[in-house]
Amino acid sequence: MTEVQKGPLGQRRGRGARERILNAAQRLFREQGINNTGMNQLCEVAQVSKHTAYQHFAGKDELIAAYLRWLDSDAMLDSVFGRTDLTPRERLLAVFERPLALEHGQTATEPTPGGAGSTPIDDNTCPFINAAIEITDPEHPARAIARDYKRDVAARLTETARQAGATDPELLGEQLALLLDGASARTRTLSTDALPTAVGIAATLIEHAIPETTSARP
Amino acid sequence: MTEVQKGPLGQRRGRGARERILNAAQRLFREQGINNTGMNQLCEVAQVSKHTAYQHFAGKDELIAAYLRWLDSDAMLDSVFGRTDLTPRERLLAVFERPLALEHGQTATEPTPGGAGSTPIDDNTCPFINAAIEITDPEHPARAIARDYKRDVAARLTETARQAGATDPELLGEQLALLLDGASARTRTLSTDALPTAVGIAATLIEHAIPETTSARP
Repeated sequence: MTEVQKGPLGQRRGRGARERILNAAQRLFREQGINNTGMNQLCEVAQVSKHTAYQHFAGKDELIAAYLRWLDSDAMLDSVFGRTDLTPRERLLAVFERPLALEHGQTATEPTPGGAGSTPIDDNTCPFINAAIEITDPEHPARAIARDYKRDVAARLTETARQAGATDPELLGEQLALLLDGASARTRTLSTDALPTAVGIAATLIEHAIPETTSARP
Repeated sequence: MTEVQKGPLGQRRGRGARERILNAAQRLFREQGINNTGMNQLCEVAQVSKHTAYQHFAGKDELIAAYLRWLDSDAMLDSVFGRTDLTPRERLLAVFERPLALEHGQTATEPTPGGAGSTPIDDNTCPFINAAIEITDPEHPARAIARDYKRDVAARLTETARQAGATDPELLGEQLALLLDGASARTRTLSTDALPTAVGIAATLIEHAIPETTSARP
């Protein structure tokens, strides 16, 4: 993947056909779901011909996978876990802050031409969870990407928990990852922000797993 | 709703057209998703004519809503929260037991004719979360049913937390409800059972919120 193809948090991006298709996918998948979005509509919104679209993606399945990769989860994760202004213990909670929330790749995106300006709370669900639920075939490439992303989040949390001096870093990492997923699913289902509840649980778990004195500046 | 129309945990059910359509919906929605399932295929699997199907349901939107109501969440919730063999404190954890898991309406169902005999782990996600994610319109009747169900679960947990002597029953109820949602979403996304992680967190939260001595037999 070249720089110019990088996702939401990447450097300056080209505005070629591929980019326009991915932006259209992001908007339409979020607004109406993956399975309700066809290649024809994607081409229309992206203002590319079907011929051009199929030059970039062999088909919709490949496009879905490319879309999830394009969200550039590494950059998203780095933007939270790379923060040197926070102690590891503080970073574990910062993961739950709205602007950095790992589950909300789209909030970091430039506005799509013609797209809605604001992101209602209801749309703030994790695109990886959405894909895992919409795509029922566990062997679909998009499912593997969603799985890898969720494992990456847990691994970063575990690493940070270890730096923070947690007694069982793997356990705490997996627990905090589950809270992020719970906040996403519950926010969508209730149409009410569940992140504060998740933060409260996280604070209790961190307090329980890491003695205050163990935490030190990085 | 008459007895004969009751859902998975209801009494002996008729095998009329309505019931066959709902059974087909349950199987197809789970296997291939709501948005990938059309009325034609539903009629074929249910072995009813389209005319008959539309006599029972004005359209697919109404069928989706009817399907979620038919899961009979009241009976599912009663089967856990009505257990008198457990203390309220024990009931809070029993909610996470696999066979009673609130998020798995389908496990309590009779086998669908022609349906797969076993339920792979991957399918064990909450039909209410799935519907809330697949249906992007927050005003869709199915979204209201999903929302109501999730609120009901939290309310029952809160009520039980109060009986168990929790210092802040509303908070504990909402926290445990989020854990159930997190377990569902994460199990689906990772294709690995996340329920043990949720149970571990729940035990910590309960221990934190309810002094052991407060708990008494009901």
